[in-house]
Amino acid sequence: MSASETEAAIAADRHHEPPAPRSARAIGQRALVGDPVRVAIVGATGYVGAELIRLLALHPHVRIVGLVGRERKGDPIAGIHPHLATRDLKVYDAVPADAEAVFLALPHGAVAGRIDEFLDRGQTVIDLGPDFRLHDPADYPRWYHFEHPRADLLRAAVYGLPELHRAELAAIGRAPGAIVGSPGCYATTTILALAPLARAGLIADLVVDAKSGVSGAGRDPKADLHFGEVNESVKAYGIFTHRHIGEIEQELGALGGEDANPGVRGVDFLPQLVPMTRGILSACHVRPTRPVTQAELDALYRDAYGDEAFITVVDAAPATKHVYGSNEARVWCRVDERNGRVLAIGVLDNLVKGAAGQAIQAFNVVHGLPEPAGLLQLPLAP
Amino acid sequence: MSASETEAAIAADRHHEPPAPRSARAIGQRALVGDPVRVAIVGATGYVGAELIRLLALHPHVRIVGLVGRERKGDPIAGIHPHLATRDLKVYDAVPADAEAVFLALPHGAVAGRIDEFLDRGQTVIDLGPDFRLHDPADYPRWYHFEHPRADLLRAAVYGLPELHRAELAAIGRAPGAIVGSPGCYATTTILALAPLARAGLIADLVVDAKSGVSGAGRDPKADLHFGEVNESVKAYGIFTHRHIGEIEQELGALGGEDANPGVRGVDFLPQLVPMTRGILSACHVRPTRPVTQAELDALYRDAYGDEAFITVVDAAPATKHVYGSNEARVWCRVDERNGRVLAIGVLDNLVKGAAGQAIQAFNVVHGLPEPAGLLQLPLAP
Amino acid sequence: MSASETEAAIAADRHHEPPAPRSARAIGQRALVGDPVRVAIVGATGYVGAELIRLLALHPHVRIVGLVGRERKGDPIAGIHPHLATRDLKVYDAVPADAEAVFLALPHGAVAGRIDEFLDRGQTVIDLGPDFRLHDPADYPRWYHFEHPRADLLRAAVYGLPELHRAELAAIGRAPGAIVGSPGCYATTTILALAPLARAGLIADLVVDAKSGVSGAGRDPKADLHFGEVNESVKAYGIFTHRHIGEIEQELGALGGEDANPGVRGVDFLPQLVPMTRGILSACHVRPTRPVTQAELDALYRDAYGDEAFITVVDAAPATKHVYGSNEARVWCRVDERNGRVLAIGVLDNLVKGAAGQAIQAFNVVHGLPEPAGLLQLPLAP
Amino acid sequence: MSASETEAAIAADRHHEPPAPRSARAIGQRALVGDPVRVAIVGATGYVGAELIRLLALHPHVRIVGLVGRERKGDPIAGIHPHLATRDLKVYDAVPADAEAVFLALPHGAVAGRIDEFLDRGQTVIDLGPDFRLHDPADYPRWYHFEHPRADLLRAAVYGLPELHRAELAAIGRAPGAIVGSPGCYATTTILALAPLARAGLIADLVVDAKSGVSGAGRDPKADLHFGEVNESVKAYGIFTHRHIGEIEQELGALGGEDANPGVRGVDFLPQLVPMTRGILSACHVRPTRPVTQAELDALYRDAYGDEAFITVVDAAPATKHVYGSNEARVWCRVDERNGRVLAIGVLDNLVKGAAGQAIQAFNVVHGLPEPAGLLQLPLAP
Repeated sequence: MSASETEAAIAADRHHEPPAPRSARAIGQRALVGDPVRVAIVGATGYVGAELIRLLALHPHVRIVGLVGRERKGDPIAGIHPHLATRDLKVYDAVPADAEAVFLALPHGAVAGRIDEFLDRGQTVIDLGPDFRLHDPADYPRWYHFEHPRADLLRAAVYGLPELHRAELAAIGRAPGAIVGSPGCYATTTILALAPLARAGLIADLVVDAKSGVSGAGRDPKADLHFGEVNESVKAYGIFTHRHIGEIEQELGALGGEDANPGVRGVDFLPQLVPMTRGILSACHVRPTRPVTQAELDALYRDAYGDEAFITVVDAAPATKHVYGSNEARVWCRVDERNGRVLAIGVLDNLVKGAAGQAIQAFNVVHGLPEPAGLLQLPLAP
Repeated sequence: MSASETEAAIAADRHHEPPAPRSARAIGQRALVGDPVRVAIVGATGYVGAELIRLLALHPHVRIVGLVGRERKGDPIAGIHPHLATRDLKVYDAVPADAEAVFLALPHGAVAGRIDEFLDRGQTVIDLGPDFRLHDPADYPRWYHFEHPRADLLRAAVYGLPELHRAELAAIGRAPGAIVGSPGCYATTTILALAPLARAGLIADLVVDAKSGVSGAGRDPKADLHFGEVNESVKAYGIFTHRHIGEIEQELGALGGEDANPGVRGVDFLPQLVPMTRGILSACHVRPTRPVTQAELDALYRDAYGDEAFITVVDAAPATKHVYGSNEARVWCRVDERNGRVLAIGVLDNLVKGAAGQAIQAFNVVHGLPEPAGLLQLPLAP
Repeated sequence: MSASETEAAIAADRHHEPPAPRSARAIGQRALVGDPVRVAIVGATGYVGAELIRLLALHPHVRIVGLVGRERKGDPIAGIHPHLATRDLKVYDAVPADAEAVFLALPHGAVAGRIDEFLDRGQTVIDLGPDFRLHDPADYPRWYHFEHPRADLLRAAVYGLPELHRAELAAIGRAPGAIVGSPGCYATTTILALAPLARAGLIADLVVDAKSGVSGAGRDPKADLHFGEVNESVKAYGIFTHRHIGEIEQELGALGGEDANPGVRGVDFLPQLVPMTRGILSACHVRPTRPVTQAELDALYRDAYGDEAFITVVDAAPATKHVYGSNEARVWCRVDERNGRVLAIGVLDNLVKGAAGQAIQAFNVVHGLPEPAGLLQLPLAP
Repeated sequence: MSASETEAAIAADRHHEPPAPRSARAIGQRALVGDPVRVAIVGATGYVGAELIRLLALHPHVRIVGLVGRERKGDPIAGIHPHLATRDLKVYDAVPADAEAVFLALPHGAVAGRIDEFLDRGQTVIDLGPDFRLHDPADYPRWYHFEHPRADLLRAAVYGLPELHRAELAAIGRAPGAIVGSPGCYATTTILALAPLARAGLIADLVVDAKSGVSGAGRDPKADLHFGEVNESVKAYGIFTHRHIGEIEQELGALGGEDANPGVRGVDFLPQLVPMTRGILSACHVRPTRPVTQAELDALYRDAYGDEAFITVVDAAPATKHVYGSNEARVWCRVDERNGRVLAIGVLDNLVKGAAGQAIQAFNVVHGLPEPAGLLQLPLAP
């Protein structure tokens, strides 16, 4: 059995069905079956950029043709990301024209204005920033304090959560210039934990209390990311105003029919920094719209995620360490017999399923590759 | 200015009034003005025991006359708590008869059955376990799964949160055999964060999402306290059943008049372990019983805590590190204009204001000593 | 390009030559080209066992046919290693007879007495404990305090450091019943950092000051592995008596000719615990036997490791995080112009290149598989 | 017993003799018995500045009359050091003229050029930077790359390690304008660990392998102090060139007579960063000038430190956590019977005994105050 067969088998084992064979892709009429997809990474010098390199460098159906960082002129990766020193890669300041797909890990507002550069070449855009996550143009001034310059594209872009939008991702792959708005880390954790409840219209009232490692704040040195400040401390931040609220409301609000979940609009979302590097745990406190039983909850989650390669519904409350370094998410949901409330917990690695891994997963779907390709690495513990 | 004057001045500065002079105590008719109070510590080998030693060893009005640990026969403290090696103290297996006050840091159920041993000698009992925290005997089988053998004493014991029960603590000090049920760490954080809201009858719905360092789980080696398991991980535990819920319901429920705060009974309380040694942050998510303004909240908290030595109402959301190693608690409360909800956050060091320090603070009140005596140490950061 | 081709290409790229094709193996006359090797893991419930599972589960030429843990009767892996919950594996109490290779992660002395059980079946033994690392029977009472019951096998066993013993590992693979004594974590770090100097007979005097994360101490809960004890602390342990000294003296002593390195015998080796989970850094302080230049050192290290897939000679002093979760080691060596001394630093992940990864690397060589198979995962940072 | 009596008693208990009574000080003819000494802190916004405030704010014989930070105009301390928010202090941009002593926590070179500003007012200068640590002007270009502008003062300044220079510190206190060069953190740990050996002329060869928490690198945000970089990592830095080598050579070189310790000049000193906030452990590997017995070592250390308030010679190898937050240092020394080498280990908290605490200790001696005043706080563990 070859490595790719093993990979397929592993994927199949989790899917309970054989993964789709990689079909000929029509994107730009350039790809043939078996050719690796040529990809570029913009924002390659940050933490998310490093994760994209780490994963794409070993992706069986991909070739990295360009790493891009501001004002870089061929700097070896070893000096930028010492852990990747064995890769013979350099960082330049421009995206190669022959890239078929571009992963962009840039601050908000940085992609919206230059999107045509990629679309004009027929490149798939996988934007790991927020510029194409929200469909309503009014959400950009509201959450990000800028007017979106390309509001015309917001409807065509797909929110890159394959567990919710797999068919749409596959659909945009059939034409050049697909745009994926890859979800935020908190949003992914929270939406995955709550989607089965939202679909069933069960969320009357919602408090999401989330805890994240510091890598989500990026690599730039800041006073409050200094080891001396973070270690042995927990603190809340972005109180009442965290930008991922927009995504959470959009995605959960779209499930279960209009106004099915009165608790989603106006969700009480609190992000907190805990002294660790990776990982997010979202504790989602729900007052249900009607009394529910545990059996009902179990069925909802089993139906939603039983066939998903990267989502595991677990029996014991999950820890962030259970998914460290992997593209997995784990979800857990219980009703509290004492007060009738429902608690759903989701965990993931914010840099993988919360960023780089999820972007690659969506890219795989868009490009007709096996969805788990390049993402099979198991969690690292302890 | 002598050290005690400095201490008094510091205390006065924070109280905005001179601290009460240390009056002659009547307890057992044994004490005279100026004599140190003779104290013993039972459970001296654990983390809370170590904190009691650390603080009481330098308490200006106390003399440690006995350290007690199971099956200890004069073991030097250096072998048990290496950080206290400079203290010339030993641990024995019995409480000295001439102790005037006994601090007990023992598992639940361990004090209730032997309380007469202390009361018969007229010793003040400061129980850092839960045996005398709850007033309703029915709460013991409910939260702790045992029938309380001395239900007759539960009403006389005072819940040792000086900020709520100062007068009662002072009152029981006027007769021998006072019993203080020193509060749990999560309960203290949560009650302090919410008391001003509860007094105003503002809590319609309540989710308390709390995060704690691991020292709260005690010193015994356990698989899930192994550094390899805790580091780089967050997880929930004690879900739906944490014992401190009983205290929170009792104390907040007693404020503001009967049924003033429908959200308190049936509080959704979730404890979580984060990778740090000390510190608790309680994020208290409140749906208020009526619309509130920020000015109103500010007034409530200022009135509640303006004169308290150990509680600081802060303008910026507090981090646990801001109170590390000290007896301070910090609270912060804001209304979210977007959805009308209220968020109150409290932080403290679970081993000090959440355990040993608070016990000493209550002891000071009971014994007529200056309330901040022995507790002035400032937080340690970074 | 298939995944296995990608893997081969990546390996080739690092080797600067094509990896050896996987030839027909004669072991037990059972294997044919392309069949996966059937492996079992004994000691599957510990940290090293978990790493073996993590890596072997995705090894392209391996099938796990048995996980073995004391008194286990089919326990699902999810309950033992929650991070591996997506694997459909169970742990039993016996090694399957049809396993071709057995990885043993057991305490010292546990394998020596039962080795015939595996040899009689023609199984390759990869012992991750110390029972077959030392060639001189007298070293066992000296460092491990037991008389070795199978001293007759100590010469035939190969010390499983492929960078030093590749040919011997390949040689024992040509007959059934090969025994590999997989090196200790500290020993691997130290030997790799110093081998080029030892080969050149440069070590006149040697101090090795090593720092390790706590996972090297195993998974059993112990008082000094409690998060509260480890966090924010550094301490030395095993002072003067650490068992890996035997391996270091044996392996470095064999390089460069007899008595070429007077500093090796009697090495001053100090292990220290630092507050992290994974990683070892060995700082090797050498007084050289004669003056050396940096150019000479550079040449020695380049010659030694230029073709090695897993050893990288770096220009900037390496951090343990640079190899986190990977099978890589990094070495760095400099002469101090001020005093003529030489400093060599090595880093690795104690659970991968220091344990499970290295064992798989040696297994690959023994079984004629591509040496990097299953070990290409890149380091995880931040 | 008053607090100051308790403090005196505690100090006396450790000293085995009563502490010297606070005599009338002649400094500037301004002080009377019992008046607090007026002190200012320059560099109050950094980590060392915060520690000075933390300790001096509760010092029984001190009044803080000025906090100074660059371009500060009365900023409340709460915004700069949130953990000190309960102190009613502000930071300004100038040193008050009526301060009797000034603590300076500034980068190297910042004090040398403005020293007259303080001397002209008769203020005691306690410089926590390196400008007055080294006596030989040639050491400044060598280790700090600047020519010292006031080489004339270097001999008059006292190296502020009270355990080695107590008499000199007391002596300079008898005239205005005393200068104390407060030692570096690594230097203190190393010198205290080795002084007894150096005095006995036992150091033939010396490797000092030191590990530090990150607070020693200061508060400014830097890429390599980001939590994501530091956590789960160990690395060496300042290799061959660390500036504290100059202090170590100067101080140890002065003990035991000229050339008594050939290993001191040219010491192999290696600093390393470990993932913790506070603490230094110096492992000092010594090849002795002649064979030594453990009894001899025990006697040397007992004689050196038996009467010291802040140095404890311990039987079990110390961990940095044993002294966390306190002014204590612990030392341990053993001969390795296997190879005749000697290992000395010292630990301390780099911000207290390695910086702020030690500076206050020296200040106390200079100003005739009880040496342990303000420094009695016990270590904080876990």
